[in-house]
Amino acid sequence: MEQKTLLIECPDSKGLIAQITNICYKHQLNIIRNTEYVDPLSGQFYMRTQLEGIFNDHTLLLDLDRALPDGSVRQLVGKANKKVVILVTKEAHCIGDILIKVYDGSLQLDIAAIIGNHPDLGELATKFGIPFHFVSHQDLNRHQHEALLVEAISPYQPDYLVLAKFMRILTPEFVARYPNKIINIHHSFLPAFIGANPYHQAFKRGVKIIGATAHFVTDDLDEGPIIKQMVTNVDHNYSADDMAKSGRDVEKNVLSKALELVIHDRVFVHGNKTVIL
Amino acid sequence: MEQKTLLIECPDSKGLIAQITNICYKHQLNIIRNTEYVDPLSGQFYMRTQLEGIFNDHTLLLDLDRALPDGSVRQLVGKANKKVVILVTKEAHCIGDILIKVYDGSLQLDIAAIIGNHPDLGELATKFGIPFHFVSHQDLNRHQHEALLVEAISPYQPDYLVLAKFMRILTPEFVARYPNKIINIHHSFLPAFIGANPYHQAFKRGVKIIGATAHFVTDDLDEGPIIKQMVTNVDHNYSADDMAKSGRDVEKNVLSKALELVIHDRVFVHGNKTVIL
Amino acid sequence: MEQKTLLIECPDSKGLIAQITNICYKHQLNIIRNTEYVDPLSGQFYMRTQLEGIFNDHTLLLDLDRALPDGSVRQLVGKANKKVVILVTKEAHCIGDILIKVYDGSLQLDIAAIIGNHPDLGELATKFGIPFHFVSHQDLNRHQHEALLVEAISPYQPDYLVLAKFMRILTPEFVARYPNKIINIHHSFLPAFIGANPYHQAFKRGVKIIGATAHFVTDDLDEGPIIKQMVTNVDHNYSADDMAKSGRDVEKNVLSKALELVIHDRVFVHGNKTVIL
Amino acid sequence: MEQKTLLIECPDSKGLIAQITNICYKHQLNIIRNTEYVDPLSGQFYMRTQLEGIFNDHTLLLDLDRALPDGSVRQLVGKANKKVVILVTKEAHCIGDILIKVYDGSLQLDIAAIIGNHPDLGELATKFGIPFHFVSHQDLNRHQHEALLVEAISPYQPDYLVLAKFMRILTPEFVARYPNKIINIHHSFLPAFIGANPYHQAFKRGVKIIGATAHFVTDDLDEGPIIKQMVTNVDHNYSADDMAKSGRDVEKNVLSKALELVIHDRVFVHGNKTVIL
Repeated sequence: MEQKTLLIECPDSKGLIAQITNICYKHQLNIIRNTEYVDPLSGQFYMRTQLEGIFNDHTLLLDLDRALPDGSVRQLVGKANKKVVILVTKEAHCIGDILIKVYDGSLQLDIAAIIGNHPDLGELATKFGIPFHFVSHQDLNRHQHEALLVEAISPYQPDYLVLAKFMRILTPEFVARYPNKIINIHHSFLPAFIGANPYHQAFKRGVKIIGATAHFVTDDLDEGPIIKQMVTNVDHNYSADDMAKSGRDVEKNVLSKALELVIHDRVFVHGNKTVIL
Repeated sequence: MEQKTLLIECPDSKGLIAQITNICYKHQLNIIRNTEYVDPLSGQFYMRTQLEGIFNDHTLLLDLDRALPDGSVRQLVGKANKKVVILVTKEAHCIGDILIKVYDGSLQLDIAAIIGNHPDLGELATKFGIPFHFVSHQDLNRHQHEALLVEAISPYQPDYLVLAKFMRILTPEFVARYPNKIINIHHSFLPAFIGANPYHQAFKRGVKIIGATAHFVTDDLDEGPIIKQMVTNVDHNYSADDMAKSGRDVEKNVLSKALELVIHDRVFVHGNKTVIL
Repeated sequence: MEQKTLLIECPDSKGLIAQITNICYKHQLNIIRNTEYVDPLSGQFYMRTQLEGIFNDHTLLLDLDRALPDGSVRQLVGKANKKVVILVTKEAHCIGDILIKVYDGSLQLDIAAIIGNHPDLGELATKFGIPFHFVSHQDLNRHQHEALLVEAISPYQPDYLVLAKFMRILTPEFVARYPNKIINIHHSFLPAFIGANPYHQAFKRGVKIIGATAHFVTDDLDEGPIIKQMVTNVDHNYSADDMAKSGRDVEKNVLSKALELVIHDRVFVHGNKTVIL
Repeated sequence: MEQKTLLIECPDSKGLIAQITNICYKHQLNIIRNTEYVDPLSGQFYMRTQLEGIFNDHTLLLDLDRALPDGSVRQLVGKANKKVVILVTKEAHCIGDILIKVYDGSLQLDIAAIIGNHPDLGELATKFGIPFHFVSHQDLNRHQHEALLVEAISPYQPDYLVLAKFMRILTPEFVARYPNKIINIHHSFLPAFIGANPYHQAFKRGVKIIGATAHFVTDDLDEGPIIKQMVTNVDHNYSADDMAKSGRDVEKNVLSKALELVIHDRVFVHGNKTVIL
């Protein structure tokens, strides 16, 4: 008996769940877990169904296509690990946490390669046997640098790009190549402290809580769909550096939780928001 | 157009969701929100479906009864407020929070009466126009006192009893009268510090976090199905009294969140656990 | 034996703590609890010392004045309750929570009066025997309305003004009358969602956490020194109204925690930040 | 200019802070940060003072010894890294997190060696260049095994032993060798779920929050002074394994926060509690 996950996104209509679950029943597939969401404003319907049985993917999808309204997106996903390429700069905490989790099997991810615009994290990547590419941005304009990044990424054909504290702003052209496929960790509780040096901004403002945000990258900097946020308390004893240090634990925890959700196909993008089923 | 909630609990079987949603579709009912859970160990199936349309309750339930396996429990619940009787002793924070929330409309509850084994909270009840019964336990054994409680409660025919810091242990006979209908707030993060004086126990143990637990009352003291838990940080500066004071905010917040869940028919009891849909 | 709290704020210098504690010792006063903070950037020193003994306030303060550097602020505070006037609009949750807490003795506050720019909360104030003034802003410009507010407030000579969801923007002239004496609850996790309708903004942005902020009011709207912040998780199932509802619990909890800190003279204002000792 | 931390523990007496800070002043040492605590029940006084200046350790301690009451413990600690030996079994998440943090400099720790009663984590230790000793317990009684552990540990003369998911119960004899020097991470929110399989216990009980506890090890299993606790939410969808997986993140975060506190000499042991200054 196999397990697969059915992902559906379409305009809502009466009887939709009945139709979909009927088709699953007809295919002798057992529903292990099922979650749905209808956005009340747009009427968009989202469904994630974990199925167990013997799959005839082609017929199942054909049956669904016949039943589902126009403009539907449906996908049947198996249990294979997602393949990612991870972009980094100098900080080790996020990539380090991912490496340990993949190493001990708690994150089912296939790290195809790590790319750094600085060489610093090459040693760490090598410890874990992951190919590391140093793609410097020195003396290059943004487009030239990104062309080299694309060249380094392309052979791996990753499902997702993960920006694990990659401290470069990406052009719309680069982002357009990987729509809803770039996951970033921003070191603030968005939308507070958009832009540079969020911990320094937080320190100056005298906040009592700091946070971090994992989100998909879109054209608008720091404005993409939020996947996960977490926070931690600070007080007047914290310097900007102390906040940054304390924030690093939040960053790595948020990023790995977000990856966990993405890996299990639980994240749907709905406009500039996410629906997590 | 009316809105009602369908609650189903039965042994799982293949095609169950398809059958149930087919019946809803046949009745021209639109599914607003739908949540299910199958307990993997027992195979018990739970489903909560918010429906919109024109209801023919009788036919709908009949259709469901024909489709559902033996041992099924199903219920169609309208939007009427739940009626509760609240039992208290001397502390005002939990009952006070409920009174304010009902007063400002954020908790859709019909407080039929407040019963105290001390007279202290009568004044507060009266401020909000709620009947207050002082049922003293003085010079009575447990059964005699509970007989008086039952006498005071019975005319109101409440859906639920809420123990809002009612500092008396109830007999199995009393509990058996209201199966899964008594909601208690326990002033500890259960199962830590079962029994008397949990804050004093927490202080002695030197914990760094305290909590509170809302649960259904069963025969086993402090062992009933947990609905909601929340915690707060403490440190060495907290005396047992400081912990109790800090804990009061947690208690009232947990109890009102638990009532919120119960009011919206989101809580299913599954053995000594709850399933929250 | 009496207990008083000594509050000191001055430029840091070597030997400061020794000098201050020497004076306390000379006065035969026992230090129950002592906290200090030196801001590393400005070199400003803050100290809060709980003392026990027989106080000769005049001599003690004179001795301190001799020892402390120029520009020092020092205060010896007894245990009398702070007197507040609370400004409200229509929402009951914050004022309700404060009323219950004062009623049951868990917040040592003397509520001199409640002033509403709408009449709605008069009934609730009256239940608890607190004078209520309805000061409408109808057909008045901001200055005219504030003149009436000042007229209503002045006879009470409050230590603090508490804005418990008072939905009016105050002029710099009004704020200047009560420097660092106006405590506001803002219904967002500042500095996210400054300005109007923060829950609606949060909903549109698709955040996964919402919060509330208690702060002192300064000329710059929503930019005053933050006293306390708290957050709660939300997800895609929350409408803007659901966020507002969920946020109300956070708001009331944050405001009462902030009042707790202010009441115990634990909050020092340092520029646009707070130091909490 | 050097920085050192003065740690004092003694019976409280009037003028104590004045005397100590006078001595610091006399030595021309500037107080960067100062925290004290007096336990109100026992009258025990704790003080941690960060000093800056030119230190004459011998004279300073002598001056303090003259001033402090009998039974005082005082220590002047420099900035050198603490040396630890870490004991592990098979799970990589706690030791992995520590290794990454030491690697990137966010945890100032000198890991002298890692000792495993299984060989599994040897590879990970080696990646980071840390000596690994496999000390099997196979066919040995507890005392025989511990004799081998002591033999492996002794040459390193560690300041602390860290049990990073070391799944063996230690004898009182072993514990007595390292009084208040063994730091353990327990995978439950103590005192809930003392003993074996806490996640399984938590699952059976149906709790809505799980946690982890870092504590010093004493003779009484799971009863030692608690340093840090953290929690995370769970619900009915979590199997015991899901709880364990979710708990692993909490465990590693708690353990590294506890180490952070210990490293900075902020943890005092007071009976079976900790005072964190």
